Amino acid sequence: MTTTQSPTLGAAELALRGRANAVIPGGMYGHMNVQAFSSAHPQFMVSGAGCRVTDADGREYLDLMCGWGPVILGHRHPAVTSAIVDQLGRGDCLDGTSPVAVEFAELLVDTIPSADWAMFVKNGSDATTTCVTLARAATGRAKVLVAHGAYHGSVPWCALRGAGIVAQDQANLVHYEYNDLASAHWAADEAGADLAAIVVCPMRHDAGREQELVDPEFARGLRALADRTGAVLILDDVRCGFRLDLGGSWEPLGVRPDLSAWSKAIANGQALGAVTGTDALRDAARSIFVTGSFWTAAVPLAAGLATLTELRKGEALPRIAAAGTRLREGLASQAASHGFEIHQTGPVQMPLLSFVGDIEFRTVTAWAEAAAVRGVYLHPWHNWFLSAAHTDDDIDAILQRTDDAFTAVSRS
Amino acid sequence: MTTTQSPTLGAAELALRGRANAVIPGGMYGHMNVQAFSSAHPQFMVSGAGCRVTDADGREYLDLMCGWGPVILGHRHPAVTSAIVDQLGRGDCLDGTSPVAVEFAELLVDTIPSADWAMFVKNGSDATTTCVTLARAATGRAKVLVAHGAYHGSVPWCALRGAGIVAQDQANLVHYEYNDLASAHWAADEAGADLAAIVVCPMRHDAGREQELVDPEFARGLRALADRTGAVLILDDVRCGFRLDLGGSWEPLGVRPDLSAWSKAIANGQALGAVTGTDALRDAARSIFVTGSFWTAAVPLAAGLATLTELRKGEALPRIAAAGTRLREGLASQAASHGFEIHQTGPVQMPLLSFVGDIEFRTVTAWAEAAAVRGVYLHPWHNWFLSAAHTDDDIDAILQRTDDAFTAVSRS
Repeated sequence: MTTTQSPTLGAAELALRGRANAVIPGGMYGHMNVQAFSSAHPQFMVSGAGCRVTDADGREYLDLMCGWGPVILGHRHPAVTSAIVDQLGRGDCLDGTSPVAVEFAELLVDTIPSADWAMFVKNGSDATTTCVTLARAATGRAKVLVAHGAYHGSVPWCALRGAGIVAQDQANLVHYEYNDLASAHWAADEAGADLAAIVVCPMRHDAGREQELVDPEFARGLRALADRTGAVLILDDVRCGFRLDLGGSWEPLGVRPDLSAWSKAIANGQALGAVTGTDALRDAARSIFVTGSFWTAAVPLAAGLATLTELRKGEALPRIAAAGTRLREGLASQAASHGFEIHQTGPVQMPLLSFVGDIEFRTVTAWAEAAAVRGVYLHPWHNWFLSAAHTDDDIDAILQRTDDAFTAVSRS
Repeated sequence: MTTTQSPTLGAAELALRGRANAVIPGGMYGHMNVQAFSSAHPQFMVSGAGCRVTDADGREYLDLMCGWGPVILGHRHPAVTSAIVDQLGRGDCLDGTSPVAVEFAELLVDTIPSADWAMFVKNGSDATTTCVTLARAATGRAKVLVAHGAYHGSVPWCALRGAGIVAQDQANLVHYEYNDLASAHWAADEAGADLAAIVVCPMRHDAGREQELVDPEFARGLRALADRTGAVLILDDVRCGFRLDLGGSWEPLGVRPDLSAWSKAIANGQALGAVTGTDALRDAARSIFVTGSFWTAAVPLAAGLATLTELRKGEALPRIAAAGTRLREGLASQAASHGFEIHQTGPVQMPLLSFVGDIEFRTVTAWAEAAAVRGVYLHPWHNWFLSAAHTDDDIDAILQRTDDAFTAVSRS
């Protein structure tokens, strides 16, 4: 958390940091605290358009974080903005639910094969927490299997780090290793007759390590394990959801969860999340009491409806994949030509680059900082995100700058 | 949860209920599920303006729920809408924090005497949960005192009802009785050296019972108890916050909490919450890891900034209090003239009416339903909310209809 301010930070950025330090603990908190990962990235952003964001000093960045996932169609996508403004003209936080909640739930059910119903929330943590509560209600059991190191939110039952977490918060978690089916079986054995749920991400996307695609046999094995034990299979699709496959990130594998947690890209940046589930869990869903003041507010739901409607037109996801492929190929070729051995992991739509042997992230941090200084916003050890606003020309512009960043790192 | 559909429900409402039942468990969930409190209130609302909301059949209601609290300036307040649209034109969910987060944190610190800093969240539950985590981080202790029956959110550590909650979720709670200082002392003794925090609402506003203002001696006693034990005093101002006193709901008593949880009215309906705290807790705030994808999204922060700026002009809170007083006096006179013995409890800004001896809420439910049919939206056993959009004429129009509702109930 030490403020090692690079001389590259602008005057407006530095002034804002000074003001923020006075009124926000540490100047910022959580995943957006830039001082946790860079001395060259700006903490503050004033605007965004398509795949570009602009900082307080007017510097423009080609954006490879997409608001850390939510922005799937590009910043200020006209169809989403229009839906937001249109709904604002009617109302947002009303006494009753807006009909747009029904329309959006219908569209989710129509889009996601494992979904017979939907409930709306605000955060990814709301979604994963609701899934666990629902699984416990359905089974009358308490234990929950989660992968070591998997991020399911920053609330006490699943927090990975930080002070203030007590033993009882996580007393019902039993850990397995991602992609290691035997470890999941051992964990299920340990939970025994008290196994309520198996929580799993569509891939291993733990911050600070290379990403790892799911082994299809592992996914199928978890489905079989849940079926055999009567546990609820919960897919935490908060981070990957809607970017890889509209029907759910394991739909291409043919493995369907009982419950899915959604958020991030569901409304192109407006605050929204959802839980979807199967008919078998409908009564359990009615038996829990979960709610929030803004959970069915109309404006984010209208944004969600507009976003999914746009995604269903079928052009966005192929564009995201094409942009990701072009970026990956370009980076691979650049690294080779500069003599760096790198790994690019995860699906192309959610890339991550690491330098082989760079255990403490020094090289990748220097490279990410060099990219930031050159106007590309990417993260050294958290996966990036592509959006439908990334054209081939944008990717080429990114690659020009990352090539310069490789040069800068190879010189230092 | 049985659907006893009143013949008063419109065709569009009934059609939406049918569709909702197919894709949302029970047709709706949480506090907004109208079937939990009425057979005459519409589940669906399509628009709002000032202190009026309109249902799917085009029926207009004078609104005494204000979106269940968030709407403090009135639906679609022009200054807030303008700030939202203006910020939408720049960006919402960016890679970095918007400078509006700093501006709003500065304004909160300037407005709330107990606040030296602020952190933003999305839900009331996010705010209360973050407060508890922070108190545990600050003290290295685990136990948390909460009042019996007090609502601090619907997440597992504090949920009051519903299936899926397991013993460990609430293993560190120790209960006291609201306004009973001796019971708080006993609870603190039970927690002993492991007492991390005392959580308290500004008044007793538990749904399903009459409201109870705080006894100033009780508030002062909790402050002294926290000081003596080294526990953190957490004021859950989620429901009352900004409506009673801009500086915090206990500011008129001169009792300042260490941490406050805010949400609901903070942004006139946009999804936002905040935690504010004292300098003594700044390091602990830096030591926890809490975050969410949308926690510093710019649009709700811009709405919050506009809302608090408007509230600080000084006209809104006196208007809310005046409207509440006029309503209370009118209802008292009506009840007397109809021969009903009623209690009106809580502050006038957050009213609740109950009929004496009406243990099962039958009379008040009939009265609330009669009011709904006549175009006044209020709740039989959850407190209502006034807004700055309620003029004297609006209150008089409400009173005309509630008078008819008393007549209807006295006839049946």
